[in-house]
Amino acid sequence: MNTFGNSITLTTFGESHGPAMGGVLDGFPPRVSIDLEEVQRELDRRAPGRQANTSARKEPDKVEILSGMHPDGYTLGTSIGFIIRNQDARSKDYSKYGDKFRPNHADYTYYQKYGVTPLPGGGRTSARETVNWVVGGAFCKQWLAKFGISFHAEFIETNNVAETAKHGDSTGGIVSCVIKGVPAGLGEPIFGKLHSRLAAAMMGINAAKAFEYGDGIRSASMLGTEMADIYRPTDARGMKDPFRAEPCETNHSGGIQGGISNGMDINFKVYFKPTPTVMQPQRTIDVNGNECETSPAGRHDPCVAMRAVPVVEAMAALVIADAMKTARGFSTE
Amino acid sequence: MNTFGNSITLTTFGESHGPAMGGVLDGFPPRVSIDLEEVQRELDRRAPGRQANTSARKEPDKVEILSGMHPDGYTLGTSIGFIIRNQDARSKDYSKYGDKFRPNHADYTYYQKYGVTPLPGGGRTSARETVNWVVGGAFCKQWLAKFGISFHAEFIETNNVAETAKHGDSTGGIVSCVIKGVPAGLGEPIFGKLHSRLAAAMMGINAAKAFEYGDGIRSASMLGTEMADIYRPTDARGMKDPFRAEPCETNHSGGIQGGISNGMDINFKVYFKPTPTVMQPQRTIDVNGNECETSPAGRHDPCVAMRAVPVVEAMAALVIADAMKTARGFSTE
Amino acid sequence: MNTFGNSITLTTFGESHGPAMGGVLDGFPPRVSIDLEEVQRELDRRAPGRQANTSARKEPDKVEILSGMHPDGYTLGTSIGFIIRNQDARSKDYSKYGDKFRPNHADYTYYQKYGVTPLPGGGRTSARETVNWVVGGAFCKQWLAKFGISFHAEFIETNNVAETAKHGDSTGGIVSCVIKGVPAGLGEPIFGKLHSRLAAAMMGINAAKAFEYGDGIRSASMLGTEMADIYRPTDARGMKDPFRAEPCETNHSGGIQGGISNGMDINFKVYFKPTPTVMQPQRTIDVNGNECETSPAGRHDPCVAMRAVPVVEAMAALVIADAMKTARGFSTE
Amino acid sequence: MNTFGNSITLTTFGESHGPAMGGVLDGFPPRVSIDLEEVQRELDRRAPGRQANTSARKEPDKVEILSGMHPDGYTLGTSIGFIIRNQDARSKDYSKYGDKFRPNHADYTYYQKYGVTPLPGGGRTSARETVNWVVGGAFCKQWLAKFGISFHAEFIETNNVAETAKHGDSTGGIVSCVIKGVPAGLGEPIFGKLHSRLAAAMMGINAAKAFEYGDGIRSASMLGTEMADIYRPTDARGMKDPFRAEPCETNHSGGIQGGISNGMDINFKVYFKPTPTVMQPQRTIDVNGNECETSPAGRHDPCVAMRAVPVVEAMAALVIADAMKTARGFSTE
Repeated sequence: MNTFGNSITLTTFGESHGPAMGGVLDGFPPRVSIDLEEVQRELDRRAPGRQANTSARKEPDKVEILSGMHPDGYTLGTSIGFIIRNQDARSKDYSKYGDKFRPNHADYTYYQKYGVTPLPGGGRTSARETVNWVVGGAFCKQWLAKFGISFHAEFIETNNVAETAKHGDSTGGIVSCVIKGVPAGLGEPIFGKLHSRLAAAMMGINAAKAFEYGDGIRSASMLGTEMADIYRPTDARGMKDPFRAEPCETNHSGGIQGGISNGMDINFKVYFKPTPTVMQPQRTIDVNGNECETSPAGRHDPCVAMRAVPVVEAMAALVIADAMKTARGFSTE
Repeated sequence: MNTFGNSITLTTFGESHGPAMGGVLDGFPPRVSIDLEEVQRELDRRAPGRQANTSARKEPDKVEILSGMHPDGYTLGTSIGFIIRNQDARSKDYSKYGDKFRPNHADYTYYQKYGVTPLPGGGRTSARETVNWVVGGAFCKQWLAKFGISFHAEFIETNNVAETAKHGDSTGGIVSCVIKGVPAGLGEPIFGKLHSRLAAAMMGINAAKAFEYGDGIRSASMLGTEMADIYRPTDARGMKDPFRAEPCETNHSGGIQGGISNGMDINFKVYFKPTPTVMQPQRTIDVNGNECETSPAGRHDPCVAMRAVPVVEAMAALVIADAMKTARGFSTE
Repeated sequence: MNTFGNSITLTTFGESHGPAMGGVLDGFPPRVSIDLEEVQRELDRRAPGRQANTSARKEPDKVEILSGMHPDGYTLGTSIGFIIRNQDARSKDYSKYGDKFRPNHADYTYYQKYGVTPLPGGGRTSARETVNWVVGGAFCKQWLAKFGISFHAEFIETNNVAETAKHGDSTGGIVSCVIKGVPAGLGEPIFGKLHSRLAAAMMGINAAKAFEYGDGIRSASMLGTEMADIYRPTDARGMKDPFRAEPCETNHSGGIQGGISNGMDINFKVYFKPTPTVMQPQRTIDVNGNECETSPAGRHDPCVAMRAVPVVEAMAALVIADAMKTARGFSTE
Repeated sequence: MNTFGNSITLTTFGESHGPAMGGVLDGFPPRVSIDLEEVQRELDRRAPGRQANTSARKEPDKVEILSGMHPDGYTLGTSIGFIIRNQDARSKDYSKYGDKFRPNHADYTYYQKYGVTPLPGGGRTSARETVNWVVGGAFCKQWLAKFGISFHAEFIETNNVAETAKHGDSTGGIVSCVIKGVPAGLGEPIFGKLHSRLAAAMMGINAAKAFEYGDGIRSASMLGTEMADIYRPTDARGMKDPFRAEPCETNHSGGIQGGISNGMDINFKVYFKPTPTVMQPQRTIDVNGNECETSPAGRHDPCVAMRAVPVVEAMAALVIADAMKTARGFSTE
């Protein structure tokens, strides 16, 4: 459904062309100072039109915090409600409501599940939803920064995005991410493995098609002797200290062993397909099953992976914060 | 923790050398005829020593169903408890209890999380846990078969397993899986996307390092125009029928769009690292942080991916059954 | 935390004197026509100043729906976000921020849990939170009405409220509730019994101290032969029809047997303590543990039970809708 | 369904006349020494035939722990699986399988929900299920005892049980419970209030019809000035110490304010109806809806409340342990 996480949860709502996006961040620790301007900066990082080769639309995306914060700027431990108004409030212009299923979009499957015909801009299926994730992630990042944990995602170009856009086409791409400073001992065995949660979080981002961590895909053709991460021997390293990092000589494991962090950097990659919308007409069908054609209109990103960089960081922050809270309970910051 | 799923859940327990493995399958629909011999056959498929190049240990792995079944062979709708006795009940031979952290195993991270020194055979971290998943999956498969849904996983060899084993080494491998007959409309948007759940399930299997579905990794370097799955136009196809399959001309999407099944085959791949245990001595440290060496002993699989084939099917069956139950409620079979 | 329910969930936020109250209703079925004016009327029923002997404060409590609704007035199946602005936005007047723990309020326990000093109006502990519940309940009522299910709560006076208020005191009271038209077969056995969920929901209402259903408290001194609800014999009654009501001659059970509805009316009572705030000075301590005195100020309800009537109905509607959705899945209305 | 709790969960299974009862206790802290003989003694307390006026049946109820425990007697932090064999394994004597709905039992409602005809001894609806709860509760009690927390339930007789039994009738009764030593700050606001969870837990016990805490039912007719629990002023009491007990002069609140423990004793009462089975014939219907009569047979308790005393303690221990774990995380004992 629309809730992510276990001990720190984010519950979200909002349709692309509805009145507002928004959410509730619950379980967030009390007495954490939050810089709301920094939260806004994270939203600005995600906003379209800030990078070359992203959609020209400039949506201000101003977040309004409605609860859970003391006027003095720290969290109360209560649920944090927030909204981000959509510039174009729900249009009464019904011509925007389509009856065509755009190829590789979710129009068709939502119709099969809910019986509701396509909404303008894709409604709830739009990647606009990720503004909510960036807000939730921004709070988590600020909390985790107090423990020295930081998130570093970057875009890896596969095809030349500008060239691709020129031809009205779109392209896939990759986002890699490193999480630094995670203490050993986070994550749950069996069904709550830390990399399982990262995988679920990342695969939930619009257009994600693959996830790997550590040696990942390559490890499928490696030998056991090549992959061993040898532990550094030392009394001084203090094995009893769960927050002591760098226990291994190498990091084939990607910072997670048996589903639990080992204190090394956590690293992973997410593979994104091309934006399904292209600036060319496409054959499709309408809700009556009749053949028709989509008309190339609107402004769309030629490479959704580029936009996903702050979203990958936000979702990673939600996963790590959740694991941290589970490990430490509510009484600590 | 140790529970998987939402509306159909599997909760498991068991240490490798403890008295028994077992679990509770909850939320399973009532009045479903179950062939318990077929459940046992699934366990036999997973058992070591049944394939060339797998561990020589022959554990009978007989499942005992303790509840939730009518003597006439159908489910009651109540929770289904089961156990599988371990042949070597919990050893009193303390020499089996180690104080060495085996490289790339979970000994070290469990110690960091729980403060418990390594258990014989890895304790709860052992892939022996997957016997429980195979039992849960076998029930789900039989239920889903009534709707025409079936699961087909196979092993893809990357290095020559026999050759590798001869040298006391181990190798990674790949398991691909196709799920046939899934109706359109299964899965949840946003945080419960069907492929997110498959990813989380598959990444939870011991040694899994990467997951992809549909065009997956390759889609990151594809163009939007290459990837479009065009819908077949036809009045006869009955768009209103949520169980009508094959809506598209191609299947780049891998059967899932926007996180919801579209009626095409669902396909995905899981990439496994080599078994961390090799038949060669390895440098490591003990619980006091002192350098030591592992001694190559015991029987281990040179390629864990080979053993994972029925486990991949089982976890896929749990995911699809859960989505099916959420969609249909308890009143239907 | 701040989420109620399983298959239909309500997640809420808001402090009494913060910018807004609000919530997210998730899992609500698609294509349900909702009369938003009727939702507003439910809020008006709850509002202070509408009944004799309730607080004189007139807060408009206008709900704004931010997502999940089609402009044509039906639900989309996506999460329904809503907010209700607080008239007095978060005060910068710090004199309203107290350092005294009001007796029998939650100031002290919140301080112990979160380390945050008391907020004006009680912050998140205020019964103002129940506006959110009434909104969620109002949606559920409208859905359930389509199945002929209805909710009827009423206030039972124990002390004369007006007389009590005249003396600056407050009084407890009782709310009884009958739910009509619930089909047989709703609820879960063991830990999800329908009356357990009703009990948890009702005990969650501010100031609730006891819950009973059916013969309730009285049944503890009854005999087995007195309490038997004899089933009506009849072929015509159609035992196979799960929606056939009135199976018994009497209703000592209160419509629920073994945790599952039997088709009879469900009835229960909730017992409320007096409003802890009285219009008289009270001895207490401050955050430093020093003795001090509360000063009687503000406008408060002399009997919180009177205000709880629509809240009891709302929470009952959330419980029944959740059970209904679990039973029926998403595909039906 | 069949899982109780959030951070410490108990998942159970078992039919009255099936092969075994059992469960999985998950999330239990690591390195807690458990006296298994003490666990067995708790089961013995619950067993029939140990008290005057309880069923004469003597079931040994020996618990077997299958996982989660080190041979040295401490917990591993992994899931704790256990079973209790039923003496009379699943009977092949089909005459025991009824087609009559016993009045006030759950036979009828289970049939409506699951479509399964009545099982011998009530199947899953039998109070035999509570053996599982007593095992889970026994583990929690031993953990909580390390913090000085203890549970004290007792039976309050309403009618003379012996007299009642002599006439082949049954009677209701009350169980009161005090929990001593709970630190301030446990519980969650809004939907996870500590008394809500206690209410849900207690109402889940077979035959429970009402729950009250603190002044409970009586508070509905009290005045605000009568009920105030005045805080003790003292610097020495150390308001910053969340584990300091006895903050108030009186305890009308029953140890919980705003859903969170305040450090006073927690007290509550549970009201039980008479055992529905009586030793007299009763009119009823069969699965075809035809009138018939139950025949008084078997051995049954004339007063189920008497048997519930250790069950009330067990469920209370599960609730408090869950709240404690949520508050403290996994890293502490």
